[in-house]
Amino acid sequence: MKETEFGYIKWIQKHLKYRSDVIIGSGDDCAVIKLPDDNLLYATIDTIIEGIDFLSDTPAEKIGYKSVAVSLSDLAAMGGGFERRYALISVALPKKFRKPSFTHNLFKGMHRICKRFGVQIIGGDLSATRGHLTITSTLLAVRNKLAPATRSGVSVGDAILVTDRLGGSILGKHLSFMPRLEEAKILTERYKITSMIDISDGLLQDLRHILEAGKVGATLDEVSIPISQDAEKLSRQDRKSSLYHALTDGEDFELLFTAPLEEAMEIIKDKELKNTPISIIGLAQKPKGIRLCTRQGQITRLTPTGFRHF
Amino acid sequence: MKETEFGYIKWIQKHLKYRSDVIIGSGDDCAVIKLPDDNLLYATIDTIIEGIDFLSDTPAEKIGYKSVAVSLSDLAAMGGGFERRYALISVALPKKFRKPSFTHNLFKGMHRICKRFGVQIIGGDLSATRGHLTITSTLLAVRNKLAPATRSGVSVGDAILVTDRLGGSILGKHLSFMPRLEEAKILTERYKITSMIDISDGLLQDLRHILEAGKVGATLDEVSIPISQDAEKLSRQDRKSSLYHALTDGEDFELLFTAPLEEAMEIIKDKELKNTPISIIGLAQKPKGIRLCTRQGQITRLTPTGFRHF
Repeated sequence: MKETEFGYIKWIQKHLKYRSDVIIGSGDDCAVIKLPDDNLLYATIDTIIEGIDFLSDTPAEKIGYKSVAVSLSDLAAMGGGFERRYALISVALPKKFRKPSFTHNLFKGMHRICKRFGVQIIGGDLSATRGHLTITSTLLAVRNKLAPATRSGVSVGDAILVTDRLGGSILGKHLSFMPRLEEAKILTERYKITSMIDISDGLLQDLRHILEAGKVGATLDEVSIPISQDAEKLSRQDRKSSLYHALTDGEDFELLFTAPLEEAMEIIKDKELKNTPISIIGLAQKPKGIRLCTRQGQITRLTPTGFRHF
Repeated sequence: MKETEFGYIKWIQKHLKYRSDVIIGSGDDCAVIKLPDDNLLYATIDTIIEGIDFLSDTPAEKIGYKSVAVSLSDLAAMGGGFERRYALISVALPKKFRKPSFTHNLFKGMHRICKRFGVQIIGGDLSATRGHLTITSTLLAVRNKLAPATRSGVSVGDAILVTDRLGGSILGKHLSFMPRLEEAKILTERYKITSMIDISDGLLQDLRHILEAGKVGATLDEVSIPISQDAEKLSRQDRKSSLYHALTDGEDFELLFTAPLEEAMEIIKDKELKNTPISIIGLAQKPKGIRLCTRQGQITRLTPTGFRHF
């Protein structure tokens, strides 16, 4: 579930009691259920909403693409290698969008990403709404071998890694990003990944989830943070630093993960991962909290939400 | 998927191609997937929206209850006896509802029905919306023996049956109905049920789905249609007949099903089903179309959508 301001989710999670067939319940990127034959079923649900996750004039195909991609990113964060993937998609459609050209393109975008990742659209629901366009997708996947890559498991000394470059997603990437399923598959099959999450709320926010689960802190290395061109572009527009954008912008949908340092050194040299740059951005350490080692060698404390140091 | 006016769903279904592990895709009450060990996974998604499926001042607990109950009703329509049931629930919350008292009661309603039917809430999503309160629930269930009860399979001569009484659901039942999972279990385990659906769009509409799938017609028997007290009450208010309400009102969430006549005669005598009245309301016949044999013995043709004969 997403982080929110009203304490709702923690209250709910406290009230949920799970049977033993629920391996992972609410609180990670996906739920994981043990099937009768010990295969694992992964499930996640995500909603995108007009005016918040996309604009009223965003092209329908991009909206459709994003609606499925966000859930696929959650799936990637649990590790890749899923044999069978399925989607159920529910669309609440306001009157202004009820034109065949819109709905067909919406479906085209969903279909494009589903085809790319072998996802079968097995069901859906279409309702009229007087409110905003709202699309909810549930992704299901079955996997039979690997243990899930969860948010918890990081230890002091582990390297913190991230795929690709960060920040400025609002300029376009949030509608066209590629869920990191293939990278996650290689990472989890070949290496000891101690924790993993996808970056939806921003690097610092999502790193905080991993660190809190592992009861550790971290020091990030300013020169190692991979900053995207769009973060640079945004920085020129809004006078915030590009580093600020890389650390706090949401919806990058890159993988943020940890591994023992020696594994991390192998990962960044893995030739099969060379299409997606992977960076070691810091180390898990005591004490708790997130620190930054600046370009000048100074240590600054970063607050996960505010971050007004730059 | 729900019926709609814009031909969207049929267009999509035409474009969906399924692998062999998808036993039932889009177009029935649930999708059905074959798991690696031949167990079957049932999945359905449903959305309820403020101003359409409930009012802005509907008590939160009732909204929460309904959000899960509609999906459980879809599950019932595939037959009962599911061993393991799971829910993922996504809530798009407008500002006016962001009070702990509302969200807690919303969850209470979800939790109450989940507990009643052994459903584990394994995940969710909570988003802010500037539009209307919108709740999407996905229900998952695993079953290992019975073939699913689908919408197709009715033959000429089969009896048409329905649980409980129909019509006037808008007066309250649509927020408090009991999904017919236990009845469905007994029906599908003991009897040869040739087709089954839950009544969400109204008896005539949903009967049409079954008849079209089986390429048959039907004659209903006016005196046998079980009319609810709320249908009578509505009738006194709006001058439409109570029969009209029983035949066309949506959201009764009762089971509509067919069985060979000799099976049907056993069903209505089954003592384990005595808590829920079951009625034989007509017979599947050639030619296509739905006819009504009136109290006076006349045969009238019923149109599934309009029905302005009464």
